[in-house]
Amino acid sequence: MEKQVLGGLEWRINVPDGTSKEPVPECSYYLKPRLALKGFLVVGLMARVLNFLEKAWALGVSEPKKVIHGMKVGIALSLVSLFYYMRPLYDGVGGNAMWAVMTVVVVFEYNVGATLCKSLNRVTGTFLAGSLGIGVHWVASQSGEKLEPIILGISVFILASAATFSRFMPSVKARFDYGAMIFILTFSLVSVSGYRVDKLFGMAHQRLSTIAIGTSLCIIISMFVSPIWAGDELHQIIHRNMEKLAESLEGCVGTYFKDNQSGHPSEGDSSKKTQAYKCVLNSKATEESMANFAMWEPPHGPFNFRHPWKEYLKIGAVLRSCACCIDALSGCLDSEKQATEHLKVHLRDASMAVCSHSCIVLRELSMSVKTTTNSSKLHSSVGEMNFALQELQNALKSLPTQLILQQPFPDESSENKSNNEKECAPPVLGLIPLATLVSLLTEIAARIEETVDGVVKLAELAEFKASNEEKRAQNQSTSNNQSSDHPSCDTEPRRPFQRPEFISTSHLRDRYFSGFCKLVSVEERERHSFFS
Amino acid sequence: MEKQVLGGLEWRINVPDGTSKEPVPECSYYLKPRLALKGFLVVGLMARVLNFLEKAWALGVSEPKKVIHGMKVGIALSLVSLFYYMRPLYDGVGGNAMWAVMTVVVVFEYNVGATLCKSLNRVTGTFLAGSLGIGVHWVASQSGEKLEPIILGISVFILASAATFSRFMPSVKARFDYGAMIFILTFSLVSVSGYRVDKLFGMAHQRLSTIAIGTSLCIIISMFVSPIWAGDELHQIIHRNMEKLAESLEGCVGTYFKDNQSGHPSEGDSSKKTQAYKCVLNSKATEESMANFAMWEPPHGPFNFRHPWKEYLKIGAVLRSCACCIDALSGCLDSEKQATEHLKVHLRDASMAVCSHSCIVLRELSMSVKTTTNSSKLHSSVGEMNFALQELQNALKSLPTQLILQQPFPDESSENKSNNEKECAPPVLGLIPLATLVSLLTEIAARIEETVDGVVKLAELAEFKASNEEKRAQNQSTSNNQSSDHPSCDTEPRRPFQRPEFISTSHLRDRYFSGFCKLVSVEERERHSFFS
Repeated sequence: MEKQVLGGLEWRINVPDGTSKEPVPECSYYLKPRLALKGFLVVGLMARVLNFLEKAWALGVSEPKKVIHGMKVGIALSLVSLFYYMRPLYDGVGGNAMWAVMTVVVVFEYNVGATLCKSLNRVTGTFLAGSLGIGVHWVASQSGEKLEPIILGISVFILASAATFSRFMPSVKARFDYGAMIFILTFSLVSVSGYRVDKLFGMAHQRLSTIAIGTSLCIIISMFVSPIWAGDELHQIIHRNMEKLAESLEGCVGTYFKDNQSGHPSEGDSSKKTQAYKCVLNSKATEESMANFAMWEPPHGPFNFRHPWKEYLKIGAVLRSCACCIDALSGCLDSEKQATEHLKVHLRDASMAVCSHSCIVLRELSMSVKTTTNSSKLHSSVGEMNFALQELQNALKSLPTQLILQQPFPDESSENKSNNEKECAPPVLGLIPLATLVSLLTEIAARIEETVDGVVKLAELAEFKASNEEKRAQNQSTSNNQSSDHPSCDTEPRRPFQRPEFISTSHLRDRYFSGFCKLVSVEERERHSFFS
Repeated sequence: MEKQVLGGLEWRINVPDGTSKEPVPECSYYLKPRLALKGFLVVGLMARVLNFLEKAWALGVSEPKKVIHGMKVGIALSLVSLFYYMRPLYDGVGGNAMWAVMTVVVVFEYNVGATLCKSLNRVTGTFLAGSLGIGVHWVASQSGEKLEPIILGISVFILASAATFSRFMPSVKARFDYGAMIFILTFSLVSVSGYRVDKLFGMAHQRLSTIAIGTSLCIIISMFVSPIWAGDELHQIIHRNMEKLAESLEGCVGTYFKDNQSGHPSEGDSSKKTQAYKCVLNSKATEESMANFAMWEPPHGPFNFRHPWKEYLKIGAVLRSCACCIDALSGCLDSEKQATEHLKVHLRDASMAVCSHSCIVLRELSMSVKTTTNSSKLHSSVGEMNFALQELQNALKSLPTQLILQQPFPDESSENKSNNEKECAPPVLGLIPLATLVSLLTEIAARIEETVDGVVKLAELAEFKASNEEKRAQNQSTSNNQSSDHPSCDTEPRRPFQRPEFISTSHLRDRYFSGFCKLVSVEERERHSFFS
């Protein structure tokens, strides 16, 4: 019994083995290699499908909004399909009903702005091209059988060429690209159609109404079922990019100075943080399209009707230039790790201070944009950043003596030398990586100040909320504004590095003066710059 | 007589003046402000239209390819329209004929790759969704009147949601985005249609054939009437970007060193050149879409069927990182113009040499990519660039004595001091901008070497033509290959800065060794780096 079972098992095991080298006499056995190949292909395909599904699942988990968008499209499409399927007047796919389905498929985009943009483009393009097409059709039909195809052909050629070319114009491309395409489509269809003009009017009416149904369904669902606003996306990109820059800057400078103290820190995490600026470098295309779509959107959340979306683009450009500097910095620091050790120690605290104050300013900006609130600490943070820069300058000024002492009197630094052979390098060469670091940190700070200017302008145009401190200060100033009208007008610009803990002027005046302070402080920094 | 004329003139001048403050008693005069407003609006509109036309004209003159594309679309559309218009079987816009027109409008893109991609997506999507739709339609129609709309609605919902979500997957988005949209559209139209299944088959056949006619017309015209290849565009972007980087680098460093010699040079021209790198920073999106489209294109010009388009993306990324460094450099140099003058003079020649040799390498790379030819001078140019870097290092090494001499013995440099007050700055501070320059030039050179690696790999994969020198060398080596098999194997890697005027090994071996040389030379550069 057992043997029989074993034999059976053996037999069963042998049968599916297509790789046996024994001669295969029976006919059906010839198919085995093919079956194996088939099995292999099926398994390969299955693996690829599984891989794809895994990736899809990961994407869905990380960005559930995209899953919701898919479901929204599904709902809109089933609604419009079934609506037309169950209409008694329905006359098959060839009829006008299909335009509603087509409109939903083509017009429903990820964010509200894009959906609105495409909807309006579609309706306008169809209407304009339809009217023009009916006109041309009428003219052609009046001018005799011989001339008719010539007039039609030439008009289609001219308008299609012109409209296609116009799609390359930046102003058209940004807003009316889809409208131009729909214009070409509708004009060709209408002008060349074999219908009489009076029938065309009825058809145009039907077509426009089905398109209107489709677009309004899309607009309603995209605006009221968990809406995704292009403006929100742009807003998030900008303040997240600020945080990413802060992360990268911290990671980059931190790694450089930590490296020689405690060996390599937890590399995976820190290198991931340091690389965060790379996203910022590549965000231009997304930012521009989001800004274009955001202009079509109605007021929502903290954004009014004429929210200054173009300011976001300017801020984005400055952030990218900042990211460029961080890229250069990380490249230079990676390849030049062996700065003279005592110089590094000497400048370490001052450099780290500049870095951390720059990061504080970036995070302050990010928070200000995120909450659309004027930051009360922003100007003091900028002052502290500039102060830290001056401290770094002072640290550099105190360097030469050490530098000169080290080389001509080898006795003094003999201990260092015996510890570390790196110190043998000529002092100037050892200084270079640190000089680069200082220079690039200064440049990064300057670009962060440009970002501050951009955010201040955005706050002004978008009317950001007043911060708690500002509100308190406003109350104070209204209670005693007869005693001193603008108490810090003449003094503050002269002391750009002082910390203004409480800003006592009113909201707008504060902005004006702080802008002035900043201008003066930049000028002063340039005048006092350690390169003069 | 004269008075009368004058009066007449006065009267005429007064009439169109809508801003007069006199009381206006007559009825027709009430219309004047309105007419003036209308006239103003018309003039404003005319001005805008004229402005638009001017811009369009400028675009057409600068890029005639775009005008030609417009005309190609016009030709395709008139052809397909008239073909259907004149067919005796034609049954109006509602029929299947319109699908051919629509296909031409939607599928005809600027370059061949995009047109092919959309055409294949459209045909495949329609076919797949049509088959699936007919299947679902049949199942639904078999399951009774009550269940039918439910099955249809659910199937449309699930498939539309899944297909919409799949469009967010990077792998689908890059290649099958349009196909997924057409899939949703066709599936909804077919599955929900009120036709019987046997009629659907006939319709599907007709639909597919009209789409095939439209797509083949598009493909033929776009491929044979002055074709615009995505591959060509990508190729041009890459080698032009190399030239732009060379221009910017030259402009940037040149301006810095020229500035104090002969005042400001012709600023408009040089600043335009210096800004050229900004185009490079923003080219990522274009490069990626061109690479995606180029993969669909058949062999054309110097590009074979499996041309390594992805290598171009890698080279593009390195070029962008190079542009980042140039951006940081230009920022640093702009804000730090006052380096100590004699230091600047000391390092000027060496820095200019590194800059010009870097530019030579970039131009050599550009020419090599442009002509798809292996450059014979590339490796010697890289060697010269490295040599120039070492010279710069030597110039720096000879600095400390001067630097130290200047400060403690003021007598020696008293002449300089009296000439220029800038010299009063502590020597270390005066050194910083130059240190930054040297550091960033080194980083730029390192990134240019990465570009060289990328181009060498591209040349290997794309089988670039042999240069004249290589051909000559190949002939030589085949004539005397028994005397010495690989003469430079052991010696060359040790002398990376020597100029290999003629490369005597065979084509592939040369590449292998040069790669090895480069690896060693990079290592050596790092080992001998002046930061060690």
